[in-house]
Amino acid sequence: MAGNSFGKLFTLTTFGESHGIAIGGVVDGCPPGLEISVEDLQVDLDRRKPGTSRYTTARREADEVKILSGVFEGKTTGTSIGLLIENTDQRSKDYSKIKDIFRPGHADYTYQQKYGLRDYRGGGRSSARETAIRVAAGAIAKKYLKDHLGVEIRGFLSQLGPVKAEPKDLSIVNDNPFFCPDPDKLDELDAYMRDLKKEGDSVGAKVSVVATGIPVGLGEPVFDRLDADIAHAMMGINAVKGVEVGDGFDVVTQKGSEHRDSLTPEGFSSNRSGGVLGGISSGQDIKVSLALKPTSSISVPGETVDIDGNSAEIVTKGRHDPCVGIRAVPIAEAMLALVLMDHFLRHRGQNADVASTTPVIPAQKN
Amino acid sequence: MAGNSFGKLFTLTTFGESHGIAIGGVVDGCPPGLEISVEDLQVDLDRRKPGTSRYTTARREADEVKILSGVFEGKTTGTSIGLLIENTDQRSKDYSKIKDIFRPGHADYTYQQKYGLRDYRGGGRSSARETAIRVAAGAIAKKYLKDHLGVEIRGFLSQLGPVKAEPKDLSIVNDNPFFCPDPDKLDELDAYMRDLKKEGDSVGAKVSVVATGIPVGLGEPVFDRLDADIAHAMMGINAVKGVEVGDGFDVVTQKGSEHRDSLTPEGFSSNRSGGVLGGISSGQDIKVSLALKPTSSISVPGETVDIDGNSAEIVTKGRHDPCVGIRAVPIAEAMLALVLMDHFLRHRGQNADVASTTPVIPAQKN
Amino acid sequence: MAGNSFGKLFTLTTFGESHGIAIGGVVDGCPPGLEISVEDLQVDLDRRKPGTSRYTTARREADEVKILSGVFEGKTTGTSIGLLIENTDQRSKDYSKIKDIFRPGHADYTYQQKYGLRDYRGGGRSSARETAIRVAAGAIAKKYLKDHLGVEIRGFLSQLGPVKAEPKDLSIVNDNPFFCPDPDKLDELDAYMRDLKKEGDSVGAKVSVVATGIPVGLGEPVFDRLDADIAHAMMGINAVKGVEVGDGFDVVTQKGSEHRDSLTPEGFSSNRSGGVLGGISSGQDIKVSLALKPTSSISVPGETVDIDGNSAEIVTKGRHDPCVGIRAVPIAEAMLALVLMDHFLRHRGQNADVASTTPVIPAQKN
Amino acid sequence: MAGNSFGKLFTLTTFGESHGIAIGGVVDGCPPGLEISVEDLQVDLDRRKPGTSRYTTARREADEVKILSGVFEGKTTGTSIGLLIENTDQRSKDYSKIKDIFRPGHADYTYQQKYGLRDYRGGGRSSARETAIRVAAGAIAKKYLKDHLGVEIRGFLSQLGPVKAEPKDLSIVNDNPFFCPDPDKLDELDAYMRDLKKEGDSVGAKVSVVATGIPVGLGEPVFDRLDADIAHAMMGINAVKGVEVGDGFDVVTQKGSEHRDSLTPEGFSSNRSGGVLGGISSGQDIKVSLALKPTSSISVPGETVDIDGNSAEIVTKGRHDPCVGIRAVPIAEAMLALVLMDHFLRHRGQNADVASTTPVIPAQKN
Repeated sequence: MAGNSFGKLFTLTTFGESHGIAIGGVVDGCPPGLEISVEDLQVDLDRRKPGTSRYTTARREADEVKILSGVFEGKTTGTSIGLLIENTDQRSKDYSKIKDIFRPGHADYTYQQKYGLRDYRGGGRSSARETAIRVAAGAIAKKYLKDHLGVEIRGFLSQLGPVKAEPKDLSIVNDNPFFCPDPDKLDELDAYMRDLKKEGDSVGAKVSVVATGIPVGLGEPVFDRLDADIAHAMMGINAVKGVEVGDGFDVVTQKGSEHRDSLTPEGFSSNRSGGVLGGISSGQDIKVSLALKPTSSISVPGETVDIDGNSAEIVTKGRHDPCVGIRAVPIAEAMLALVLMDHFLRHRGQNADVASTTPVIPAQKN
Repeated sequence: MAGNSFGKLFTLTTFGESHGIAIGGVVDGCPPGLEISVEDLQVDLDRRKPGTSRYTTARREADEVKILSGVFEGKTTGTSIGLLIENTDQRSKDYSKIKDIFRPGHADYTYQQKYGLRDYRGGGRSSARETAIRVAAGAIAKKYLKDHLGVEIRGFLSQLGPVKAEPKDLSIVNDNPFFCPDPDKLDELDAYMRDLKKEGDSVGAKVSVVATGIPVGLGEPVFDRLDADIAHAMMGINAVKGVEVGDGFDVVTQKGSEHRDSLTPEGFSSNRSGGVLGGISSGQDIKVSLALKPTSSISVPGETVDIDGNSAEIVTKGRHDPCVGIRAVPIAEAMLALVLMDHFLRHRGQNADVASTTPVIPAQKN
Repeated sequence: MAGNSFGKLFTLTTFGESHGIAIGGVVDGCPPGLEISVEDLQVDLDRRKPGTSRYTTARREADEVKILSGVFEGKTTGTSIGLLIENTDQRSKDYSKIKDIFRPGHADYTYQQKYGLRDYRGGGRSSARETAIRVAAGAIAKKYLKDHLGVEIRGFLSQLGPVKAEPKDLSIVNDNPFFCPDPDKLDELDAYMRDLKKEGDSVGAKVSVVATGIPVGLGEPVFDRLDADIAHAMMGINAVKGVEVGDGFDVVTQKGSEHRDSLTPEGFSSNRSGGVLGGISSGQDIKVSLALKPTSSISVPGETVDIDGNSAEIVTKGRHDPCVGIRAVPIAEAMLALVLMDHFLRHRGQNADVASTTPVIPAQKN
Repeated sequence: MAGNSFGKLFTLTTFGESHGIAIGGVVDGCPPGLEISVEDLQVDLDRRKPGTSRYTTARREADEVKILSGVFEGKTTGTSIGLLIENTDQRSKDYSKIKDIFRPGHADYTYQQKYGLRDYRGGGRSSARETAIRVAAGAIAKKYLKDHLGVEIRGFLSQLGPVKAEPKDLSIVNDNPFFCPDPDKLDELDAYMRDLKKEGDSVGAKVSVVATGIPVGLGEPVFDRLDADIAHAMMGINAVKGVEVGDGFDVVTQKGSEHRDSLTPEGFSSNRSGGVLGGISSGQDIKVSLALKPTSSISVPGETVDIDGNSAEIVTKGRHDPCVGIRAVPIAEAMLALVLMDHFLRHRGQNADVASTTPVIPAQKN
């Protein structure tokens, strides 16, 4: 498959550019009989939506999704689900300034070289706008995972520049503009973002996602391990430069006697593995973190070249997030949902005869 | 595809267990006319081979690969290449002790739950022994990349437990048992490993891989980005818990003005991106790092359960690497080669009409 | 991939039901730089469109396709192309009669059993309406094949019930309502169809497609042979029950000395193979035929069961083609174009280094 | 995937040339817990094996398959199954005569053009020898289908040249060298084949396969219909030029009132559809036929060209089947088994929640 499809049994194929007519996608392989409505999708779309706070881009998009097919009388039919979001705020502004120039840190240069031409309006296909459809599709997967398996997926901000946030209270995540789970850090984040905006600069972030209620057995050795497919999904989100499962890079300095999670009759005694052993889910919580680079579109002047290789200066005066990492939270949740859903169907397809549905031990010791 | 295949146009499908008759694989999609011999593959296999030093498992495997098909009169024919390595040192030892017990940190528990049964001998399919075939297949990809595109891929140890190693001299990597690129750290590594062995413990590691001479344009937006596929490949290596491209998790605290790599008529002025922009190769060096957990098979006693969920103690008395990270170096190189090869063929297939073969700017400013 | 995607490098993913809001699709992997417009697609859509003559269903659909993405300033960008056709004539008629009954010869029964529920309005996803998107996507492939490779694809009616038509004059195919290439059979076809309509019955048909100007070398042994993929494509068209390449079922009684096409310095002396040898295109014309069953929706009363397995009678009073085979002509052309396009990109990806672009002999002896 | 893989969830990847060291393959996605042994595979391999009668090639191959992995203590483990058959009778004969010449009707010309070189020994990868691995893999699928679902697959010869055979008695199929199901035609076939051998010529054949006990619901609309995937599988067998499902090309002259199979409370009243409606299995017997061309390797002299395009004469003096169609019987069974197995797993993966396991009506009216 060309690169705009994701998944093997539960698949998402997307299309659409930042400033085109619409963005959309096709979800294929969704089990029939799932109760789903536009509202189920809209909740997450609104969480990702630009223009909702002063910390995100000022671009205003209604991001109203339409379900064009695959749902009949409120239930999925098992056939492909067409999704569409019209672009309403694609201002017909003057692009002549960026038409022939490569914005540093963006895909302008690589798209031009790869394809010999590019849709330069707002980044075209390389814009994070495309992720809205991932969020819509992810909402379908989330609904199935929750309704049929009891799986819940929650993302949150772990760090923004120098400010670290502990997952103290996940219930506040959707009530603050940072998806921050630490009530004590809200003021600090607010102050930091204000300063950043004054500087005209941007900053990186770390985002975490946790999935609970996971069945044992998801993941296909040896290449399509659950964690490998999660890494693929997360590194495929715009601006992501690092992915960790469980203890991630901390394992470099851990000893074996310290790292391995003991099994006890009451459950695993720790979860350093992040819920994956040998590429297969252990039933423990899936824990994933990702590092997102600062957006490259800032008002601080930058050095670049034009399409002919001549030196040029660039200043981005537009509507951009000072920290793209924030809005990545619902996107990361969506991608994790897509991976889990795909692996659930694959696992059920191959192993329904003999897979143990009752785990030998509970997931987690209390 | 089920989980034992990797790649879309240039694919590898593997089979085989740790203590079965043989391990093997099929490389499909290799361009015809590539000069290749068993010796080309054996070089990397010998680098990965167990039993080569006191720092790795004492299991002795000749790891002699056979090319069963797809090569005729010294050249690839364009048809599928069959690879086979016989298992020569699968001692018929007594497995009754581990048959009904789950080793903590291993895939024993998850395989048993997923499949309802498992080949318990030496980890069966979950054993890292399987990676020998990845290394053999990767050597074919490496050969093509070098001969036809001038790409070179070099891996090395970046950190082992607390000991960090800088890439001071890549020429020494294959001459020391740690794949260490820092001549000043060899003694420290040696001392650290001796102590570790005495303790009967193991430790994690960080491994890096760098690919040079990369063509601009590899990678398929939006899901099969080059970095996303690299993350998939690396997280799919046994024991890997984290993957970084370019500056990786350091981007969390970077500002946009600091992170973005400027373009100049003489080349990019830095390479924080790790050679990938918008999921597509920029022509700069590809830089990847991975975190490997300490092996869980150690002689320090551990707590676990048996197949019925009853409490049990485990002590591994066998032949195991105190640091699996070390031998991951040639595996990581092989996986990067497979990803690059696949994306090269995909890119050429879609874009041969118009892709720019001459980059607008050189890869890297000197 | 779930079942709504077609192709490996040049892919089409479709969605939409007969009486839903819209049907649509995503073309992925199209080479950049191809000049394409809505008009290029509309030509073939109009050929397939219902309501164009008294011989096809009276349903009136404008079938106006929109290109939502992937084309910029008149050229493909190499990114995914979103296609959309709104359903305008989905009459809100009373479906209570067919809601709980299975129409014989239709997918009603199998969809209900497979998915546990179904969109019963006009056949839902199983309706041939979905093929409009295949035609639109096929038009993109056709354009590339013609502009870049000189390949032309022409379909025509070979037989309708008892009336056989020889390919005497392909130039008349688009000028008569039967896609008939034999000017001497037009009156006979007209008379036959009038009688059929009076009877309230339907009839089967044989359709042929010929592609000229084919490069040598398309097709991937051993499973993805060009002819195997063509068979997949053609048998996947609604109502098709048989597929032939070259001499097809006539080979059963042929002798080897008769069947094999001789090679001469001036070209192949015959084309019994239909342009494929060992699964790879020989450069000769690709020749394919398909058998289409009579539509099952007829006004002749039929015997069936309802959703509870009770006996029931069915009479279809609707807008249906008395011979679905006729409108299959542009669909078969489109599917052949999709297969050829996919294989062209795959072949170029793998074999661009060494594939012979100059055939040893001309395609066809004159 | 490159072309040497088949299937999506239950996959087969093969390698090997006619006169190489060995042929082999990897079966991936097989459910765990299936009891399987080498003997189960050998039965079908022996049916396909050359040298078993005077009607097939005199090449003698033991065709002894080894299972290298994926089976433990007599049961499949759910991991990939490695299969290997060594080539024992690859005589080191003189190939200089055919090295630079293209045999008409063979893949010599197309392979040379596609890949720029070829393994000319016995056809290399294009040889039907490769199908032995399909038969071995198909035996695994057959075993699962029979043991777990009660599906049985039986192939037989329907026609050989002018001699038609009715499926009067399937129990005799494996007891005569023609796989003929009609006891009254055995003498006629014998006489015909003797004459053919004297002439040094070959002839085409028609082979049929019937699968009984099929669950309702297999097949994925719209592209991966069960019949479309069957067509792909069958047309991918060497020498096949046509595929029919159900009534096949006879539907061209059928009327709708005649073709559609009525549903009654006691079952379908006929099976013209061949067990597939709308691309999904109806529970009725799957009926497939294929047309196989006469082998092109005959002792009747033929006209061809050499590698430089110069005129040449060719006479094949070797060990070849006068009717390749005969030995295609077990191959066709194997391919049907692979398709059914793949679709069973896909169907179970997506639809296990709601698919009806109890059909509304019995499969077939008696």
